[in-house]
Amino acid sequence: LDGEAMAQIQVRLDSLTKPQGSLGQLEQLAKQLGGIQRTSGPKILKKAVLTMAGDHGVVEEGISAFPQEVTPQMAYNIMNGGAAINVLARQANAEVILTDVGIAFPVEGSLINKRVANGTQNMTKGPAMTRRQALQALLAGAEVAEEKIREGYNLFATGELGIGNTTPSSAIVSILTNSAVEDVVGRGTGIDDAGVIRKRRAIEKAIEVNQPDKTDALDVLSKVGGLEIAAIAGSILQAAASHVPIIIDGFISTAGALIAAKLAPKSMAYMIPSHGSVEIGHRKALAGLGLDPILNLDMRLGEGTGAAITFYIVESALHILEEMATFADAGVTEKTV
Amino acid sequence: LDGEAMAQIQVRLDSLTKPQGSLGQLEQLAKQLGGIQRTSGPKILKKAVLTMAGDHGVVEEGISAFPQEVTPQMAYNIMNGGAAINVLARQANAEVILTDVGIAFPVEGSLINKRVANGTQNMTKGPAMTRRQALQALLAGAEVAEEKIREGYNLFATGELGIGNTTPSSAIVSILTNSAVEDVVGRGTGIDDAGVIRKRRAIEKAIEVNQPDKTDALDVLSKVGGLEIAAIAGSILQAAASHVPIIIDGFISTAGALIAAKLAPKSMAYMIPSHGSVEIGHRKALAGLGLDPILNLDMRLGEGTGAAITFYIVESALHILEEMATFADAGVTEKTV
Repeated sequence: LDGEAMAQIQVRLDSLTKPQGSLGQLEQLAKQLGGIQRTSGPKILKKAVLTMAGDHGVVEEGISAFPQEVTPQMAYNIMNGGAAINVLARQANAEVILTDVGIAFPVEGSLINKRVANGTQNMTKGPAMTRRQALQALLAGAEVAEEKIREGYNLFATGELGIGNTTPSSAIVSILTNSAVEDVVGRGTGIDDAGVIRKRRAIEKAIEVNQPDKTDALDVLSKVGGLEIAAIAGSILQAAASHVPIIIDGFISTAGALIAAKLAPKSMAYMIPSHGSVEIGHRKALAGLGLDPILNLDMRLGEGTGAAITFYIVESALHILEEMATFADAGVTEKTV
Repeated sequence: LDGEAMAQIQVRLDSLTKPQGSLGQLEQLAKQLGGIQRTSGPKILKKAVLTMAGDHGVVEEGISAFPQEVTPQMAYNIMNGGAAINVLARQANAEVILTDVGIAFPVEGSLINKRVANGTQNMTKGPAMTRRQALQALLAGAEVAEEKIREGYNLFATGELGIGNTTPSSAIVSILTNSAVEDVVGRGTGIDDAGVIRKRRAIEKAIEVNQPDKTDALDVLSKVGGLEIAAIAGSILQAAASHVPIIIDGFISTAGALIAAKLAPKSMAYMIPSHGSVEIGHRKALAGLGLDPILNLDMRLGEGTGAAITFYIVESALHILEEMATFADAGVTEKTV
């Protein structure tokens, strides 16, 4: 990040008619945006939610409350504008960019086709993907981000769609944050107690069968990850490489962000947190990235919904930086004690 | 609240293409709005931040980082559109309604004049206000809310302006939540360690001198409160009486909300939380109302700034209720496990 731009923004923030630092995270966001864009006057031009879709062979283990056919059904729902992410992106004046990185059944319509496979393999029986597939999915995410940056988008939100994808996310978070499996396995879309036990067992078995190397994020990603999780990581890496900030959505997105952070630690400086999910492993995953959630809405929907709400708050930070009066302009006395 | 409307909204929310309950607080907000407006199709028409301004005799005790002249200066800044609350209200498409309930020096311009006194008296030497003044200030807040409701506003945010006003707020919160003074006294606009000690002593002395009756909220308000805090309480009571929801801003606003809740416990159902302030007593105050903050922005500015950001999230809740597709419409399979 550009320290000079950030220092200039700090001076400006401290000249505004408010106690120094009293706008907390809004001030931090303004500085972060300036540091990323390398200017004391950061601007948001076009915003997009990059929703990556993929399926998971591990659904065979009975780890999800919804059947796999819901992934393509929800892809159509997003293309038709009826999903929660469409509603929240519309409110934020942002686009939803849906990418198929590997839905089990091909879908047609207004989405980007970057299919790597018909979903992953069942990770309890072997690797979810080959290392080559993981790389392909990572590159797919990077390509989508790069294309949108070329079109003038300069603020992203991550998002995803994929029945069963809290299971690989829990596996990744467990491995990369050194957490016990039981501490990072939640109810996903709403599985019952027996389902939670099956989910834990599936993750434990996948780790035992595949022996992922925690020092090699690509190994973890390919063995116990997901195609859409790889694409999220890729979109984050490309955003960072192109000096574009990216808002990290919930649990699955944060698992993708952990992969990105392991592959390129500097990418963390381009991440903006959004909400704290109900999914129990999310706090651990965020802590692994040094991120504190801004929103406390008890959400657990995915698609990019928490990140989409956060667009507004990032814009609040820039409005404050641009529009507030200074002590000098407004004739307000500065702090005396 | 209208239980029938809320039940209808619950049915609708559960028919939308998302796991049941997965939008957490957004779903709760949609139900709360419907219950308050007594309809399954709640709408937000016009939004206003009701910023109440008043001064505090206790500033003589050296409890604030800024001199008292900043209250009128900031009132002019708000009237000129240069304060943080103006920026955030503009972004939210909301009006800022500034009311002078008792600034020490009269100000002129586009604000509502409901002056009860030239600020409060120094509460370390006797009551901050007479009981009659406290009632007048309470009614002033109610009148402003009533007038705005008549003009078609149907969603409010509380806000305030008044140098020194975390001191009476800490006193109120200490008394009404049975908290030790030291647990609810923070740095306000940024006072140093010596100032924090003076502030604690001032509050302890005010409580000792005045012996407020914790079972009589009006007694607490008049002896150790503030004119703008009374007006905030009044605006909340009027909003509740008129079936209009009101978003509670930070520490001072929450002290006002505690007074309102003691005077009329049913008013709590009309309160919507906003942010969790840096001011250390805020969590205790919110807990006293059963409110969980939605935003975690480390803010401590006041004016209504945290509540103004929350307008957007309340609107998110209604967009979700209105615009999302149902499982039936979108042809998405419902939960199977």
